[in-house]
Amino acid sequence: MTLSGDLLIGGAAVRGQGLGFHAWNATTGEPLGPEFASATAGQLARACELAAEAFERYSETTSSERAAFLDEIADRIVAIGDELIERACAETGLPRARIEGERTRTVNQLKMFADLVREGSWHDVRIDHALPERRPLPRPDLRLRRVALGPVAVFGASNFPLAFSVAGGDTASALAAGCPVVVKAHGAHPGTSELVGRAVRDAVDACGLPPAVFSLLFDAGFEVGTALVRHPAIQAVGFTGSRSGGLALRAVANAREMPIPVYAEMSSVNPVFALPAALAVRGEPMAQAYVESLTLGSGQFCTNPGLLFAVKGAAFDRFVEVASEALAAKPAGVMLTQGIASAYAQGIERLCGMPGVRVLARGKTAGSEPGWRAQAALLLVEASELIARPALAHEVFGPSSVIVACDSVEQMIALARLLEGQLTATLQIDAADHAAARPLLTALQRVAGRVLANAFPTGVEVADAMVHGGPFPATSDVRSTSVGTAAIERFLRPVCYQGLPQDLLPPVLRDENPSRAARRIDGRLQLPA
Amino acid sequence: MTLSGDLLIGGAAVRGQGLGFHAWNATTGEPLGPEFASATAGQLARACELAAEAFERYSETTSSERAAFLDEIADRIVAIGDELIERACAETGLPRARIEGERTRTVNQLKMFADLVREGSWHDVRIDHALPERRPLPRPDLRLRRVALGPVAVFGASNFPLAFSVAGGDTASALAAGCPVVVKAHGAHPGTSELVGRAVRDAVDACGLPPAVFSLLFDAGFEVGTALVRHPAIQAVGFTGSRSGGLALRAVANAREMPIPVYAEMSSVNPVFALPAALAVRGEPMAQAYVESLTLGSGQFCTNPGLLFAVKGAAFDRFVEVASEALAAKPAGVMLTQGIASAYAQGIERLCGMPGVRVLARGKTAGSEPGWRAQAALLLVEASELIARPALAHEVFGPSSVIVACDSVEQMIALARLLEGQLTATLQIDAADHAAARPLLTALQRVAGRVLANAFPTGVEVADAMVHGGPFPATSDVRSTSVGTAAIERFLRPVCYQGLPQDLLPPVLRDENPSRAARRIDGRLQLPA
Repeated sequence: MTLSGDLLIGGAAVRGQGLGFHAWNATTGEPLGPEFASATAGQLARACELAAEAFERYSETTSSERAAFLDEIADRIVAIGDELIERACAETGLPRARIEGERTRTVNQLKMFADLVREGSWHDVRIDHALPERRPLPRPDLRLRRVALGPVAVFGASNFPLAFSVAGGDTASALAAGCPVVVKAHGAHPGTSELVGRAVRDAVDACGLPPAVFSLLFDAGFEVGTALVRHPAIQAVGFTGSRSGGLALRAVANAREMPIPVYAEMSSVNPVFALPAALAVRGEPMAQAYVESLTLGSGQFCTNPGLLFAVKGAAFDRFVEVASEALAAKPAGVMLTQGIASAYAQGIERLCGMPGVRVLARGKTAGSEPGWRAQAALLLVEASELIARPALAHEVFGPSSVIVACDSVEQMIALARLLEGQLTATLQIDAADHAAARPLLTALQRVAGRVLANAFPTGVEVADAMVHGGPFPATSDVRSTSVGTAAIERFLRPVCYQGLPQDLLPPVLRDENPSRAARRIDGRLQLPA
Repeated sequence: MTLSGDLLIGGAAVRGQGLGFHAWNATTGEPLGPEFASATAGQLARACELAAEAFERYSETTSSERAAFLDEIADRIVAIGDELIERACAETGLPRARIEGERTRTVNQLKMFADLVREGSWHDVRIDHALPERRPLPRPDLRLRRVALGPVAVFGASNFPLAFSVAGGDTASALAAGCPVVVKAHGAHPGTSELVGRAVRDAVDACGLPPAVFSLLFDAGFEVGTALVRHPAIQAVGFTGSRSGGLALRAVANAREMPIPVYAEMSSVNPVFALPAALAVRGEPMAQAYVESLTLGSGQFCTNPGLLFAVKGAAFDRFVEVASEALAAKPAGVMLTQGIASAYAQGIERLCGMPGVRVLARGKTAGSEPGWRAQAALLLVEASELIARPALAHEVFGPSSVIVACDSVEQMIALARLLEGQLTATLQIDAADHAAARPLLTALQRVAGRVLANAFPTGVEVADAMVHGGPFPATSDVRSTSVGTAAIERFLRPVCYQGLPQDLLPPVLRDENPSRAARRIDGRLQLPA
């Protein structure tokens, strides 16, 4: 398939009339064809207006229609074949095995939402039958279901060119909910975006859905994204990216007359708490696993462990020694973009310049290797320094982490209470640590969306019970997750139907329950037979 | 019980150090003692900080502790007895039967949330067991529950001195979720607020909970409310009131560094669509019921039917005639406050002065009766005028409504698509109207949180399937309801626990399921045996 660099607006390939740009090969630092072109304000408005028109029909598709559509997208992404893998590898510098794994994840995510749509409990049906004899007033028949919000703006993420981009988690959950999607592709992987976008467009066609259920826009800068969040047809926003990017979009949304939900996943340092018994018993493998986790994908995961707390002593010293040695052996990893690579270099320089920061180890330098590369870094500070300088706990996106040397477990707990909001928080514990872990856990569940024991936070399972979210600044909306089946709730709202005759009720609310969804009837949850 | 006019901060009665004010008898227009005094910024900060301290313990109370607390509040509100009824009647001008009914509703609401807390499905437990053999990577054990957001600011509403004030729906659902509550009492019924506030405080004591689970603040102006929304300890806001008030609080929340959910229920004209067959078959009783609904409680319900659409013809003329006659017989109703009474008078004057508006009928004038009173009003406009002047469809809070004369059902449907967000939308239909009702219903479920057939929207049932919410400007957050069991979701967020040993897991997530909540296990919803 030849890449065209065209936008997809309401099913049609359209040449962007805005600024041109092209992709880069992250590993070689060379430009990649073809020329892409930004959408203009008019082109963006057209995509949004068409999405609003498509909404009515799409939001009332049956569960099987919508599920078949999600499955079709999955199949068509697989069918692109090696071209997708090669282009994504080139544009992101991520290794082939990672991109192949991410494709599997993306496809499974789409199929998971297809299954969820079929299963039906997401409708959250509640039926309270009429009580005509009730005194002093009769109760009317009341039936609740969740319906789609409307067109959703999805921003592609730099670090997940498939799983959090054009047909990634935000798109899959929005489409599952019944919302048309307008994607703003990430400028770092426009070719990957076009390939996936065309697969979605073809799935729309194959399923006979309104073409404007999906549009794909390119942008050389920030204008398209800003205008998208501002457009009155857009009813929700899904974003994964930097804190500054997320805050900027939130400010744009705040300035709208009609408020809309903005689901921005922004920044997290994912603190790890290595408790004394665990550190004594398995400090060495823990140090190895820690360095593997913090350098995975060149440290470009939202769940990268950027802070590790442990109590000083012999086991601590050994942990630091092993981790430093492991990190020093790490080659300079390829970064997603030149901008990310330089922001990382500056961030490390800033950290290293702060009083009390000790550089434990640096990874190998890039030397004369081409492309955008980053030298891993392992730093150490005393707990008292962290208390004095909270900026030490701000995210530096890339392969680095800060070990915080604590005087006691009590100090570790006190520090946990001071943390900003996080996507994850991790306990490394042995049986003898459980008593100390209890107050720590109480603190950490207030700070983070996911609390782990005896693992590292990179690797986010796509499942019913996953939460990829958390208090600000990890995300802009603590009530939600962007991974797992609960992600569909972000794009739904409840509607109550009072006293409607059966033939006017939406099928899922009718007495006969044709879609066999679980329903709460007169206060009791009932499963289909 | 002698009213003191004191604030309640962390369980203690404290004299407000800010501006003094007093209540008014709405029916006589005379001042009511005692003197109340506003909280200062320092007093407010203390209430918020204490609430934050109480949060940890309160949010981890067991279901039975929390349910017993809610039941205790209900019992203590009943135990206040006639003093509460008399004070509320005096402060609001609402009749005794209404206030007694509202007390029953308030008490039942608290008990409903107690039952919900015991039942446990609100935890939304999801368990995905570990799959250690899975390839290429094992799946860890993942368990999700919903936890409380943190301290919640609740604003008392003028028009529901019990059911949407100190221990009303927002407070009940926030306490049920595990959130401490700081109430800003409505300045129009401070005595009622103090009585209920003391009942809540005594329930806190009786249940052995941290005293700062509940605080009550007074305010002569807007400073306390503004500072409350701005305070960093506050994690969510519940508000019922005017559009300008809700928008002001939203602007304050938007200016915070940490975004928080603001649940502001603001304004709605609750359109009614009287379809031709229904109008022909039962236009006369419909007209009577319409006038009863729009003048109920002097028209001071959020769900007051402020717009009615019908197609011109003989049945329409008869409907207008009967409605006009019924409205003309209505006495001038007592309004909640002088401010609301004069805003209503100005709003009607504004409407009547708009081109194309015909005054069909006015209710009786207040004459020499004391207190704050409002003269009911029934107006008529042509559909074309409404299209030209959307301000005709803006809420005028009080006993008025505008009948919109349509040329056809098609025009009615077109108008439905142009409406702003609403709490409710109503269909009046006969069997012969179903075909026309279908596209109308499609439009209305996008506009409103609740769609009714063959009833009037005043009277909001407290039930599982109720939605009291809707798109902007009906509310500031379309994803939620402020009435019914789903209101608890506003104050919860999901947390995932990965790989935690059983003894560190919160009880509801342990294998043995001690609270017998419904849980989704490995993708299948399971009810307790």
